[in-house]
Formats: sequence, C-alpha cells, structure tokens
Amino acid sequence: MIRFIILGHRAHTTADFKLEDICGGAGRLDILTRCVNSAFFLSHDLRRDVQLYLVMMGGDDAPKTIRFDGSVMKYLNPDERSTASLIRNALLKKLEPDREVISSPGVFVSRKSFEQLMDELSEECRFIYLRENGEDVREYEFPENPCYILGDDRDPTEEEEAIMAKYPYDTICLGPVSLHANHCMILVHNEMDRRKAGE
Amino acid sequence: MIRFIILGHRAHTTADFKLEDICGGAGRLDILTRCVNSAFFLSHDLRRDVQLYLVMMGGDDAPKTIRFDGSVMKYLNPDERSTASLIRNALLKKLEPDREVISSPGVFVSRKSFEQLMDELSEECRFIYLRENGEDVREYEFPENPCYILGDDRDPTEEEEAIMAKYPYDTICLGPVSLHANHCMILVHNEMDRRKAGE
Repeated sequence: MIRFIILGHRAHTTADFKLEDICGGAGRLDILTRCVNSAFFLSHDLRRDVQLYLVMMGGDDAPKTIRFDGSVMKYLNPDERSTASLIRNALLKKLEPDREVISSPGVFVSRKSFEQLMDELSEECRFIYLRENGEDVREYEFPENPCYILGDDRDPTEEEEAIMAKYPYDTICLGPVSLHANHCMILVHNEMDRRKAGE
Repeated sequence: MIRFIILGHRAHTTADFKLEDICGGAGRLDILTRCVNSAFFLSHDLRRDVQLYLVMMGGDDAPKTIRFDGSVMKYLNPDERSTASLIRNALLKKLEPDREVISSPGVFVSRKSFEQLMDELSEECRFIYLRENGEDVREYEFPENPCYILGDDRDPTEEEEAIMAKYPYDTICLGPVSLHANHCMILVHNEMDRRKAGE
C-alpha cells in the first residue's frame, strides 16, 4: 500500500467556499486537488493501491483529515473543480470525535489531526520526507508500505517537524530542482512503477 | 529550448464555454490547462526555457494554436480555472491568416494548424513521440531543441500520424504504465533537469 499525507496548512475545514474560488477562498485547496489527481490517475485507470490523506488545517473547524481510498474510489475525475466538490461534500458531513465517516465511495472524513494520523500510521508505514539533501530516489530501497509526507505550498512548520521527528523516517531527493507537491508525487510513482515492473 | 505540442482534438476554438464547464463545454480544455501547469511550474519559479503549443481542433473556428512562451510569461497561475481564462481570452482575439497575435504577456494565438506548426518547427527542433515501445527516457540522448508531441486524452489520429511521419523523430518511453499527458511532461522535465545538473 502506497500512502501520501498532504499538509494543507490553510485549507478550509468548513464548506464556506465557492467552487469558483478554490485558490483564494478555500485556502489553496487547488493544490490539494492536484495532489489527488497525481495520487490516483493512470491513463485509463485509477491506482487502486493508493491512500491519500489531506490534512486540512485552515478555517474555523480544524483539523479535519479527508482520506481518499483508491481501492473503493468512485466518481473521481481528474479536474480540480470536481475534486474540490468531493472535498466540499466531505466537509459538510456531521462529525463525531474519533470516528471516520464516509462522504462518497472512496472519500472519508474525520477530525484527525496530523499528530493522530502519524500515530495511527506509524505501526504499518515507513515515513518518507522529500528533502534536497535526501538520498536520490533512484538509489532508494523502497519499504513495503511507504508513506510520503508533503506540504502544500508551504514546508512543514516547526511544530509539524517535531511531530514527524517522533517516528523513524527516510529522506529522499527527486532531482536537482524544487517542484510542486503534485509533481513530486508523479516522480515517486514512476520510480515505484519501474521497480515493480523490474521485479 | 524545450517545446511541447499538445493536440487538443476537441478543444473549443471559440470562447463559447463557461469557466465552470471546461471539461465538458470546452472539449476537455481541463487536460490542456494541466499541461500548461506541467510545462512551466517550478516550486518558486517558472521554467523560462519552455514553449508550449496547444493545437485546438474543436468547435466552429478550428484550427487555432495558442503558444505559451515561458521567457516572457506573466499572470500564469497553477490552477486550471485561471489558465482556462487566459486561453479563453486568447480565443476572443481577432485573427488574420498567417499572423500570430499577442493575447497577454507570454500567450499568443494564431490560425496555425498542426501541419503548419510541425513545418515551422521542423528546421530547429527534433520531434519526440512517447510510445510504449520507445527507448527508455533514462537512456535517451536528448537533442539540443527537443519538441515533444502529446495527445490530450486521445492518441494522435491517423491523419496526424501521417503529418508526424513526414519529419525525422525519436520515440521514447517513460515507464511501464501509461500516463496522462501532463504527468508524462513532469517525467521528461525531471530527466532533462538531471542531465543538465550532471553536465
């Protein structure tokens, strides 16, 4: 299982934004929708072995975590607007503490914080951070259950880095230039695809 | 100079679509906007050495070619909607035969067909097609002025392949799974970035 956690530092946790204004009014939700696209889309299929977690930390009802599960995903289209609509629907769900609820097939929402999510995943996953001084992804020996952690347009904060430091992790580098999170995801997928095909 | 030609088989050539409906009413313009994003965006900069050509072949005023020039680009944002707006503005421009006009800084529009564009670029560029049976991009010796040709969600038609066959070209393969055009662009950029850094 391949996992991605995206830190949406300003992403709105209330559905008070218009689909015409996902960049501004929704706290750069556009970035998160592009990460959904990169996580799942193949040319004529979806990547079924992927889970994506959007940790949304903006607005008045933070935190919320929206989980996209490729194995049961339906109604996902590649464009930003329709994905933002799936996310907005998830934000409208009534939530209780400590319980994840389904919003639409493959889309789940909870009140999990980044810290709770890391704690939950730490038993099964190996965490991987992208850093300019990390090991080249092309030399990296992938774990069985990688979990990549990426920021939106901002790097992880000091508080987030302190949470990340509580668990073992690897750091990898994807190339000589710094890229958007959704572009980084394409590069790690390609390297994993190549390894899998070469097995 | 790095060039990409994207074949927008149904992309509307009249500005008769709403920005809320770029997937349907605009003939899968969403795909083309994602290609613009992949062509130009770095983490905190634009790729200035890139030219992207959107060959738009749908609707009542086809063909039109919209050229994005990284060296003089302004007002480009990474989201689909704002890029669709730049494209719609370009489609509103009054055009004469055989003359390219500026729509906004870095965005130019003309009545060029795919055939005319190939003919114009053939002197300076080496054309490159992506094929599953092509040479692995990681082994490929890049030309000085590569020009990648990609389809939208449809492969090139027989007529387009006949045009492409008129000029010398290379074929490369990016990995074991078939990907969307905008994802392919990220992979070729990464390989070129690595080569350039290793020079």
